[in-house]
Amino acid sequence: MPILLTINGGSSSIRFSTYQADEGLERLLVGKIDRIGSPSAMLHLSGPDKLMTMMPCLGAVKDHQGAIKCLLDWIEERGLGKEISAIGHRVVHGMRRSEPERVTLGLMEELRQMKAIDPEHQPGELALIEAFQRRYPKLPQVACFDTAFHRSMPRVAKLVAIPRRYEAAGVERYGFHGLSYGYLMEELARLDPLAAKGRVILAHLGNGSSLAAVKEGRSLDTSMGFTPASGLPMGTRSGDLDPGLACYLSRSEAMSAARFQQMVNHESGLLGVSETSSDLRDLLTREKNDVRAAEAIALFCYQTKKWIGSYAAVLGGLDILVFAGGIGENSAGVRSRICEGLEFLGIQIDEGRNSGSAEVISSDRSRAIVRVIPTNEEVMIARSTWRTLVPSGGV
Amino acid sequence: MPILLTINGGSSSIRFSTYQADEGLERLLVGKIDRIGSPSAMLHLSGPDKLMTMMPCLGAVKDHQGAIKCLLDWIEERGLGKEISAIGHRVVHGMRRSEPERVTLGLMEELRQMKAIDPEHQPGELALIEAFQRRYPKLPQVACFDTAFHRSMPRVAKLVAIPRRYEAAGVERYGFHGLSYGYLMEELARLDPLAAKGRVILAHLGNGSSLAAVKEGRSLDTSMGFTPASGLPMGTRSGDLDPGLACYLSRSEAMSAARFQQMVNHESGLLGVSETSSDLRDLLTREKNDVRAAEAIALFCYQTKKWIGSYAAVLGGLDILVFAGGIGENSAGVRSRICEGLEFLGIQIDEGRNSGSAEVISSDRSRAIVRVIPTNEEVMIARSTWRTLVPSGGV
Repeated sequence: MPILLTINGGSSSIRFSTYQADEGLERLLVGKIDRIGSPSAMLHLSGPDKLMTMMPCLGAVKDHQGAIKCLLDWIEERGLGKEISAIGHRVVHGMRRSEPERVTLGLMEELRQMKAIDPEHQPGELALIEAFQRRYPKLPQVACFDTAFHRSMPRVAKLVAIPRRYEAAGVERYGFHGLSYGYLMEELARLDPLAAKGRVILAHLGNGSSLAAVKEGRSLDTSMGFTPASGLPMGTRSGDLDPGLACYLSRSEAMSAARFQQMVNHESGLLGVSETSSDLRDLLTREKNDVRAAEAIALFCYQTKKWIGSYAAVLGGLDILVFAGGIGENSAGVRSRICEGLEFLGIQIDEGRNSGSAEVISSDRSRAIVRVIPTNEEVMIARSTWRTLVPSGGV
Repeated sequence: MPILLTINGGSSSIRFSTYQADEGLERLLVGKIDRIGSPSAMLHLSGPDKLMTMMPCLGAVKDHQGAIKCLLDWIEERGLGKEISAIGHRVVHGMRRSEPERVTLGLMEELRQMKAIDPEHQPGELALIEAFQRRYPKLPQVACFDTAFHRSMPRVAKLVAIPRRYEAAGVERYGFHGLSYGYLMEELARLDPLAAKGRVILAHLGNGSSLAAVKEGRSLDTSMGFTPASGLPMGTRSGDLDPGLACYLSRSEAMSAARFQQMVNHESGLLGVSETSSDLRDLLTREKNDVRAAEAIALFCYQTKKWIGSYAAVLGGLDILVFAGGIGENSAGVRSRICEGLEFLGIQIDEGRNSGSAEVISSDRSRAIVRVIPTNEEVMIARSTWRTLVPSGGV
């Protein structure tokens, strides 16, 4: 049975799934390798029976390369190599590409040149593609870009207010989380086709967080810009900053650009403000006794609320607000705090529905509908890969 | 007759005014020295008869020090030295001070330590205070801080999502244009006392631009943050940026922090995007024939509109929007573009009133009132100085 493998390779974990390679794209297995770099690195698997298996990786997983080897070994061992008919990869930054693309030498060469833009994600993603190319040179691979969804944004939303010459070098608002947004819009079109054509704000809130303003199915604006460090404060990322801050830190403590990069990507956001955790769940349990945790949560909710107001201005009002992502799907309290005071946008949360995790959490009298949709980037990688390789089977 | 001198000393110009030093604070003269650094530096004066006098500065005005000397010489020549009873200075950054303060050695020492935060404005302002101290050591001087108006902001609006330890070092959202906002709120209380107590968005749009959300007379949030380079794109400043951009420019072209500082303060914003001018009036005349000018204007209006939406979310709706500043007071077209699509906030512009520069430019059916109020930072410096030195005559 031919199968399709999807790979979503971050820097601290690699997630993968297998799907039956036909129109239905039935999911077979989900897996991940996590705690890369720690001695307790594990490969987790769960099948259609939802039973979870965990196994230690063979050999050392001291870095991303070790994790890739662990994944390849597992595929070999299971004899899956012959069954896999295609591989789809999430690639965070696709610059000005508006569609997923089959991996070629030319594409790889171009993606390699982009490491300067996204040194946080791009190197690990490219290493995964290259490792599979070496092991299975004939297998088609597809790069699915997180930026592609936002290529429809108008010029005014893409412009960055620095000297124009940098635009030619590729500096503009790209936006990310596009696989998630693409999935959410397909789900919304299924659940509520009319609303999906209206004024939609998508809030993908997780360890990485962003919002998008979508009208008539087209992305008009999104909070992340040139790199995924921008927009909202996130688990460990700062979001947009006063540009004077980089200069101040350089003057006051001779902070280098590399150190600044590390700080805004890995030591800021919820972790930076709380000083204890980047995980909103941890902070919620500590909120009552730790003012730093409470302030980190308040900041996150406040900034998300402001972005919703800002995107209502972009859309000229609001028909539907969608929460997704680890926080957006699971934290009723955070959803409720974000929506507090947004009655002027027509938002009325039904707290019973919200705490019961209903699909629609707005009240029947609410002019704007508020929904929770569990996102699924893996399915979107599978669909994008399938549609790229079998265009007739596509959208 | 005792007079009060106000000084607003930027880096490329020094503006000053004299007021009768009594409760009424009647204005006597307005003056400025501009084109500092160019051979054609001039001292301009206009009196109550509105007649303008221009005179070349005596001696070389090759820098800020030269301009200060020109101002002191003019005062001496006119014999004003004996009449001046107090001097009020605009000081852009006052850190955590919530009131104007009489200049003391201790205050100067503290302000000097802040040069690292605001190297663009602070050095020139301090040089002015010091020069007047040397020439008139007994004259009381008052520092009026642009940050003071925003000290009432809640913690959540002040937090910057980087590691918390930087807060102790003074990193937080301060906000600026406070003298202008203070004046606008006093004017609003005079013109429409009820609205002044409601949900107010103030848009100070000029060469430097920012917005503030004010509720019950208290600043809740403002677009500028730690330094005046942040928030909206402005004449030559970028406004908030993706923090990844500083790192990218350092990697891709070895840009230093000092060069980055220069770029985001002096080569970005309207000038950066248009490549021709930082002055919106210039761009408006070129808009039809130069796509770069059109894009710069569109970006400015679009970002301002987004900020209005964001602050409506902070305020839980909107009662009154006030336009002020060089652009806000004079460009009906820009006001109209900013308000386009904001009908969901209850904003309806009456284009007749708008183009006729009426005080109220919203229609009678508009749920939110939109006003234009000419701002006056000089008067606010005079009032603040008077109230600081003569507390009983104060608010």
